[in-house]
Amino acid sequence: MDKVVAELMGALGEKQVLTGDAVHSRGAGIWRSDTIQAKALLRPRSTEQVRQALKICNAHGQSVIAHGGLTGLVESAITAQDDIALSLEAMDKIEEINTVDRTMLVDSGVVLQRIQEAADDAGLLFPLDLGGRGSCTIGGNISTNAGGNRVVRYGMVRDMVLGLEAVLADGTLVSSLSGMIKNNAGYDLKQMFIGSEGSLGVITRAVLRLREKPKSEVTAFVATDEFEKLQQLLKRMDSGLSGRLTAFEVMWNNFYRIVTTPPAKQTPPLAQDYPYYVLIELLGGEQEGDQALMEALLADCLDDGVIVDAVLASSGAQRQELWAMRDDVEQVQRLGAGCTFDVSMRVSHMQAYVDEVNARMGKSFGDYHLITFGHMGDGNLHFYAAVGSYSPEIRHRIEAAVYEPLAAIGGSVSAEHGVGLEKKPWLGICRSPDEIALMQRLKRALDPKGILNPGKIIDVEDIEHDKGKLLSD
Amino acid sequence: MDKVVAELMGALGEKQVLTGDAVHSRGAGIWRSDTIQAKALLRPRSTEQVRQALKICNAHGQSVIAHGGLTGLVESAITAQDDIALSLEAMDKIEEINTVDRTMLVDSGVVLQRIQEAADDAGLLFPLDLGGRGSCTIGGNISTNAGGNRVVRYGMVRDMVLGLEAVLADGTLVSSLSGMIKNNAGYDLKQMFIGSEGSLGVITRAVLRLREKPKSEVTAFVATDEFEKLQQLLKRMDSGLSGRLTAFEVMWNNFYRIVTTPPAKQTPPLAQDYPYYVLIELLGGEQEGDQALMEALLADCLDDGVIVDAVLASSGAQRQELWAMRDDVEQVQRLGAGCTFDVSMRVSHMQAYVDEVNARMGKSFGDYHLITFGHMGDGNLHFYAAVGSYSPEIRHRIEAAVYEPLAAIGGSVSAEHGVGLEKKPWLGICRSPDEIALMQRLKRALDPKGILNPGKIIDVEDIEHDKGKLLSD
Repeated sequence: MDKVVAELMGALGEKQVLTGDAVHSRGAGIWRSDTIQAKALLRPRSTEQVRQALKICNAHGQSVIAHGGLTGLVESAITAQDDIALSLEAMDKIEEINTVDRTMLVDSGVVLQRIQEAADDAGLLFPLDLGGRGSCTIGGNISTNAGGNRVVRYGMVRDMVLGLEAVLADGTLVSSLSGMIKNNAGYDLKQMFIGSEGSLGVITRAVLRLREKPKSEVTAFVATDEFEKLQQLLKRMDSGLSGRLTAFEVMWNNFYRIVTTPPAKQTPPLAQDYPYYVLIELLGGEQEGDQALMEALLADCLDDGVIVDAVLASSGAQRQELWAMRDDVEQVQRLGAGCTFDVSMRVSHMQAYVDEVNARMGKSFGDYHLITFGHMGDGNLHFYAAVGSYSPEIRHRIEAAVYEPLAAIGGSVSAEHGVGLEKKPWLGICRSPDEIALMQRLKRALDPKGILNPGKIIDVEDIEHDKGKLLSD
Repeated sequence: MDKVVAELMGALGEKQVLTGDAVHSRGAGIWRSDTIQAKALLRPRSTEQVRQALKICNAHGQSVIAHGGLTGLVESAITAQDDIALSLEAMDKIEEINTVDRTMLVDSGVVLQRIQEAADDAGLLFPLDLGGRGSCTIGGNISTNAGGNRVVRYGMVRDMVLGLEAVLADGTLVSSLSGMIKNNAGYDLKQMFIGSEGSLGVITRAVLRLREKPKSEVTAFVATDEFEKLQQLLKRMDSGLSGRLTAFEVMWNNFYRIVTTPPAKQTPPLAQDYPYYVLIELLGGEQEGDQALMEALLADCLDDGVIVDAVLASSGAQRQELWAMRDDVEQVQRLGAGCTFDVSMRVSHMQAYVDEVNARMGKSFGDYHLITFGHMGDGNLHFYAAVGSYSPEIRHRIEAAVYEPLAAIGGSVSAEHGVGLEKKPWLGICRSPDEIALMQRLKRALDPKGILNPGKIIDVEDIEHDKGKLLSD
């Protein structure tokens, strides 16, 4: 048996260290068909065991890839045969909910949906919500700085974390779990671990910020005939709902058609021939008044021509139907194999950018689909691009069409999904060589042997363990 | 002439390098009576000049202390005779306001109030507001992660910065000014420069996030008879105003009395014998409806005994009078020389903590004043402590009474003011040795010669330039 694995078994106990088929029979990710390749998969039961495991791995220069719910989309949790996977699945306790401080102390292996439900049971709200809620873990959400549908109001995960406990590559514990809203006593260390995809430390526990639970939900679905009017609508809704605009989800015509045309289950609530549609949500304090407010705002927008058609959900069931359209993203698979994207830019650049991507796709492929939708309130667009056939070469050409135009407008190749291996070749589109060099400097400072998720996001050539180059070459 | 100064004059031009009386005649801070001690004060006109200056200083191991408006409260911008001050005063342009993206691109030397006014003129809001608004600069606000009265809704400065340009000690430019709300393309480097008090880089420009300007302002002032009811009130207001609660400022009886008793200008809007008072503000969309909402919430709170008295401002003038009480902090000077504090903790620990500090003050000094107020919505308390006489030894004993009880409850010695030199001796109250070691590791990685604001926040003993030890010994 591998010496490192034997040492880990001694320290953690044999049951906490899976090897062989117990590892290789596990799926590599819920969107993937392959299985985990790793010499061992650790299931530590405590922060102390995470420390022991990392100390051992660090001493041996052994690469370690932290695993949450494996719902990521950018190959950030992928392991190779020589890696060790460190799953947080056995650390899944909700340790405390405080309704006065409106905080929750959780282990990083807790599944997001359990956190949402526990908050709800306590009369509070944990606002993070995304498709993977039933499988993804809060540790993974924090490591990737997850976004979702409510960023326009509540921010990303970065804004929901009051305290963090993380273990550095050498086993050092960095713990700040007091859960204060304000703390300017020195550098805000937790920021480094949020969104760094497990490459600077392994997150073991967190204090989450909870919010008062809204007492009303008002959902509208509207159509506009020009992109510029979408921008006006966003401003009007943000201003008119003053603090209560909770989602502003845009759909281009091609997204709307595919999710409201059989075999998709939803029927179209508005005619299918408008260029743009928006799903708007208000979470507020008083159902009747909030519904009236939305109605009045929409009436003004109709009068002024800012929107051309609208429907306001009058029941919970109608509300769910509107959201079901937005959530039925998998309809795009009807178009055959393709690529999903998660890009961001200033809202003022959005229209010209989408036009440019379409022009490049047309030039490059002739016939193509570019299904377009996203969190417009945050400047975040998603695409599904399909061209009738699929190969790594085709994928690269599609990526070029989508990513290259971002350079001129200062957009980002990743709004909320992260970088992992998938977007690493394109990082230079939105990060300067000096920024990447500074990321490398940080990586060297925190993980000098480079054992933590090596090769993801960036390569760091001059550190001891450069697995990354092997994986990405 | 000093060799470094000569070199700087050659690179920046003589007018951009002040020496001698031109430096020593400048005040060291708006709350201080001494003047700037430094071998030179630089006034670079561009980011490129900041880079040149830092390259030269780094080559010589020359300490550099960035200067904004010098309104800080924790001795973070203090210089000694061997230091060079780098003032951003000549970089004071507002470069762009974008009303669609709701962003503003500014040089770091722009005074906060100009930013507020420019946002207002564009029909938008930059929500940061604090007493030093007429003198403090946005670069200083960002370097200290400033807070203020509206954190409960809009967060701290960290939440208002979409992009940052900073220069590292060696002159490396780290620029990310595209101004996106979401960007998960690698490590979020700007977080390191926010709140690190100029010790990791010099901030030169920023993209600020602006908000839609509220159309209503509703201000109430209420009294409660128990601390526990303050907690209930906070939850009720947060829930009832659903996204529109913009300030929740608590005053203990002793603060209220001193700001409503002559020679203070304000007359008491409520009787002076309640134990606690709260200033509550709603910024919303519709004056009449929002006023009615606040009135209804207050009526319910009165009915349920959550509050015992209340007044609702019925005009802009009344609103200003209520805020004038809160802002008239300088009345505390009537109590003689003393110390101001800025601590934070979970709201659920607040009452027992204040009791404990009072007990320690009584035990240590017999007769004392501990004027107590703060941003309760954020768990942030301010004290003014005075005991009839003042000396460094007395100051230390007061600090011990205030800071030591924070250790047991995981509170912070600095909620929003920062650490500087003043709180450095107490940092260990709220940061573990491993956390401080990680801060040192970061400092070494970004500023290996230790030239940037050395000795502030932390000492880093094993780096080349350890001015800090000299200053703090």
